[in-house]
Amino acid sequence: MASSHSNYINSPCAACKFLRRRCTSGCVFAPYFPPDEPTKFANVHRIFGASNVSKILHEVAPHQREDTVNSLAYEAEARLNDPVYGCVGAISVLQRQVLKLQRELEETNADLRRYARALGGETTSNYGGQRG
Amino acid sequence: MASSHSNYINSPCAACKFLRRRCTSGCVFAPYFPPDEPTKFANVHRIFGASNVSKILHEVAPHQREDTVNSLAYEAEARLNDPVYGCVGAISVLQRQVLKLQRELEETNADLRRYARALGGETTSNYGGQRG
Repeated sequence: MASSHSNYINSPCAACKFLRRRCTSGCVFAPYFPPDEPTKFANVHRIFGASNVSKILHEVAPHQREDTVNSLAYEAEARLNDPVYGCVGAISVLQRQVLKLQRELEETNADLRRYARALGGETTSNYGGQRG
Repeated sequence: MASSHSNYINSPCAACKFLRRRCTSGCVFAPYFPPDEPTKFANVHRIFGASNVSKILHEVAPHQREDTVNSLAYEAEARLNDPVYGCVGAISVLQRQVLKLQRELEETNADLRRYARALGGETTSNYGGQRG
């Protein structure tokens, strides 16, 4: 993604286009907001604001900026889709899924221990323990 | 939380105090940013900006505003703790945990099926199937 700026060296990046300003060679947005992805910047601008995004990008190391922009874009899209919970909604769903799977695994392990007892002691060293 | 404004009716809310403005009775922030929780507003202001938070609050129904503020506060705190991934980091961790648990459950169910076969056909109707 960081190399995509060179593909559009004559076009302003999506951020500068959106903000109607000149895109200079040192533009902090340009490597991560190519002009062919206008929605990506529009979304992060709408949720975080351009100056907050710029501030965050200047706070992180250059090699971490692509991941930073992608996680901000993910958060912004989630908030636009769900203004109440944003991506915290996905965290709740995943937390419930983890709890459900943990319960299921415990029950299955309990079944396994019952089977191990039914089959006799010689196999219990292979089966019936909680998986690590 | 929504009732806490009445406890501090003579103090400006944390948002108005932070923004150094008069807190009026119709303040959209006041019910969700009581003056005794100054960090909550400072965090969402730093990540989203006060005007974006106000815009989001006006977009959602009044009964959803408390959840909205709490999810914004959670996201803002996560971003301040981890400027690169924010709460998307938690989503990645949870997604990996779900995949690990699903694999573990599949393996345990496969063990269970082996046990059921070893114990003979009459018990396979009770054990050895994937849990629903």
